[in-house]
Amino acid sequence: MKKQIHFNAFEMNTVNHMAHGLWTHPDDQRIHYKTAEYWVNLAKLLEKGLFDAIFLADIGGVYEPYQGSYDAAIRRGMQTPINDPFINVGLMLGVTKHLGFAVSASTSYEDPFNLARRFSTIDHLSNGRVAWNVVTSALESAALNHGHDAIIPHEKRYEIANEFLAVCYKLWEHSWEDDAVLADKSNYQYADPNKVHTIDHAGQYFKVRGPHSSEPSIQRTPVLFQAGSSTTGQKFAAKHAEGVFVGGQEPEQIKKTVQKIRQFAIENGRFASDIKTFGSLTIVVAQTDLEASQKLDELNRYFLPEASFIQFSGSTGIDLGSLANKDLFGQRHSEGNQSTAQFYNHKTDYTVADVKDELSKFGARSILIVGTPEEIADQIEELIEYTDLDGFNIYQAITPATLKDVVELVIPELQKRGRYRTAYSDTSFRDRLFNHGNRISPRHISHHHQIEVENDSSN
Amino acid sequence: MKKQIHFNAFEMNTVNHMAHGLWTHPDDQRIHYKTAEYWVNLAKLLEKGLFDAIFLADIGGVYEPYQGSYDAAIRRGMQTPINDPFINVGLMLGVTKHLGFAVSASTSYEDPFNLARRFSTIDHLSNGRVAWNVVTSALESAALNHGHDAIIPHEKRYEIANEFLAVCYKLWEHSWEDDAVLADKSNYQYADPNKVHTIDHAGQYFKVRGPHSSEPSIQRTPVLFQAGSSTTGQKFAAKHAEGVFVGGQEPEQIKKTVQKIRQFAIENGRFASDIKTFGSLTIVVAQTDLEASQKLDELNRYFLPEASFIQFSGSTGIDLGSLANKDLFGQRHSEGNQSTAQFYNHKTDYTVADVKDELSKFGARSILIVGTPEEIADQIEELIEYTDLDGFNIYQAITPATLKDVVELVIPELQKRGRYRTAYSDTSFRDRLFNHGNRISPRHISHHHQIEVENDSSN
Repeated sequence: MKKQIHFNAFEMNTVNHMAHGLWTHPDDQRIHYKTAEYWVNLAKLLEKGLFDAIFLADIGGVYEPYQGSYDAAIRRGMQTPINDPFINVGLMLGVTKHLGFAVSASTSYEDPFNLARRFSTIDHLSNGRVAWNVVTSALESAALNHGHDAIIPHEKRYEIANEFLAVCYKLWEHSWEDDAVLADKSNYQYADPNKVHTIDHAGQYFKVRGPHSSEPSIQRTPVLFQAGSSTTGQKFAAKHAEGVFVGGQEPEQIKKTVQKIRQFAIENGRFASDIKTFGSLTIVVAQTDLEASQKLDELNRYFLPEASFIQFSGSTGIDLGSLANKDLFGQRHSEGNQSTAQFYNHKTDYTVADVKDELSKFGARSILIVGTPEEIADQIEELIEYTDLDGFNIYQAITPATLKDVVELVIPELQKRGRYRTAYSDTSFRDRLFNHGNRISPRHISHHHQIEVENDSSN
Repeated sequence: MKKQIHFNAFEMNTVNHMAHGLWTHPDDQRIHYKTAEYWVNLAKLLEKGLFDAIFLADIGGVYEPYQGSYDAAIRRGMQTPINDPFINVGLMLGVTKHLGFAVSASTSYEDPFNLARRFSTIDHLSNGRVAWNVVTSALESAALNHGHDAIIPHEKRYEIANEFLAVCYKLWEHSWEDDAVLADKSNYQYADPNKVHTIDHAGQYFKVRGPHSSEPSIQRTPVLFQAGSSTTGQKFAAKHAEGVFVGGQEPEQIKKTVQKIRQFAIENGRFASDIKTFGSLTIVVAQTDLEASQKLDELNRYFLPEASFIQFSGSTGIDLGSLANKDLFGQRHSEGNQSTAQFYNHKTDYTVADVKDELSKFGARSILIVGTPEEIADQIEELIEYTDLDGFNIYQAITPATLKDVVELVIPELQKRGRYRTAYSDTSFRDRLFNHGNRISPRHISHHHQIEVENDSSN
């Protein structure tokens, strides 16, 4: 069988996600992001298209500074305002049977006991369809919203994330044994206390006794996604993640990143195939080349470069709005946003005008492919073969038109070529990705976090 | 018009909530609490019955000690395992149009910035149907799951809660002005930054800059519920709450509590009517007295006193399982659970056997009324008139049979008497309760938490 291609829809609970300014297009529905209908319709469309999952990004603050403040971010709705992604997952799981849900949550600003329970709850209610996109939150403004005077330094954020995951693994994998729940009505015995254990975690950042609040769910540990672009982030991903979101537009660079992550995985005692890699992809498709290129022109007409500058400035800490166009982009990397700035390292000889120019085109933050369904499928197959990516997070231009095009034009063509499922299997999200059952691989680090199991019943 | 009666369904995301042992009844569906179907069916039933809201309780740890450990709590499924309530609200809001959602969340173990956004999100998606049951978490075991070595003392928990709410008020009420959102497609202007403000909260327990992540929702601040039974708790409720859950079974005691809370409210510059009070009520109803009393007998046959002892022991810190029956119940109030222990103060001359005896009857933790629909309606009207309660949290015996009985037998009788709505108005949860619009009363303390509004645009 040919390598199967996986598609997630890339989303965010906000009006302007990655298609900067395109919420103003007359067909675009993002202005209704606050309504249940928007998300119900989207989830149903994605399930109709047999998508793997909806991938919900998140941030914990505003993009700043741009021209010295966050005003521009507010003005342009540049991922502000932004609502909580979890409630929407609760909503969408009720109108779907198979679609997966990859939810971003931060190890820097969440409580591990609460968050572990929230994921277990989704996994229960959805019959094993949840994934966690583990983020450490790179925005300084997020730190200020959560008790800090400045952002936690990059390396320390990953230290915290490692311990946060250790706590979660203990709760998810080691607190309740597989046969702990009896649900025995005749003896009034719901569970066997000898098979439910405290975790007694006392580390550098967290102290959690347990037991886990939730009984074991189908997947126990949610499918773990990560998107770190720094070397620390990639090593973290190689250790923990089952899905990695690989940024960038250049196939050669992407290929290298995929290789590096798989190599790190092997160094961690995992198989290269234990990680599915997802590129970022914008698709502009129509029945003819001419129509497709007219579509692209129209998207560019609505595209708002300033929103792109705001996001870039907020992400890197380099305020493009306060620099002269002729300034060298240079080494203006703030400490706090090191990881994001590294992503732009190869551009250090650019001027500010060069950077702005690059950011001024629609689709600049992802791979952009334009053409007929056949051409799109050709390019996707080539990309997959060349880069070793397993699939893509599909960026939206016009919501839901872009996804509707993918569902109606691109997926049927990929199906024809034997590259895409023609029906969902009745299984968990993890099993759909890896075909090795619902539970996390025995090679995964979560199994190293054994807890001391007491043999008596006096927990 | 006669005083209208409000009903909430009292629920918890767990197998054994308050009807101890009754999950074992052949008709009971609680064993399916982990499934979406259970909650979808329940929400639809409640909406059919024109209930005000579903009220979701929560705990952050296990009930212990009983016989020296938490083993018995696990064995009996005594509110363990328990899943997150928020995801279920996301699910239920999608299958209802009017039902309110009162969700418990702890000011001791949540992050105010994250929690404020979560409530705003529900309020957006549900069109103004969310309420927050503010809890400070009285279980020592919850403290151990959230970084503490022991429970935070009672008075300090309320200090933290006061500041937590101050942060939330600033985010909900004062960060985004009413006309901040423009959603102006023609000018690419989503919001006016001059009308979106940081909150710059720097208090004893929390530091939050803002602005709030979410744009203003219909209610802004969720309807605020509280259930504190200590004097501190009642004063807190009188200051903040719009709905108070009044425990107890004795009408005289309930009447006094209601009076006290309304008096405290007035002392806080509010009107007595600014707070709706809800008693706890178990209804056993059938077409004849004989059938009703047979129903009660059957409920008692399935009732498991031990689960009741476990909850009592875990709530008060007084381990009934380790005391001899002849021991005096005495002054065995642990510091940590002072508030709950106070609730039992009047029982200090009892022996352990007396306490157990009292806990051994079905319905012992609420008002219990048994009879025909007419008799039930009579008793409810009497209770409302005598105690000045505005409504009840309806306890479930058999799920969903109890609520089905209330919907099919009791509510029609109350409607006949002009005591209960015959249709939902198309409005927010708050407006349904108070009939003064969607927003919190201008007399409410949230309006005292003004933030400094900067007049320039350099936030």
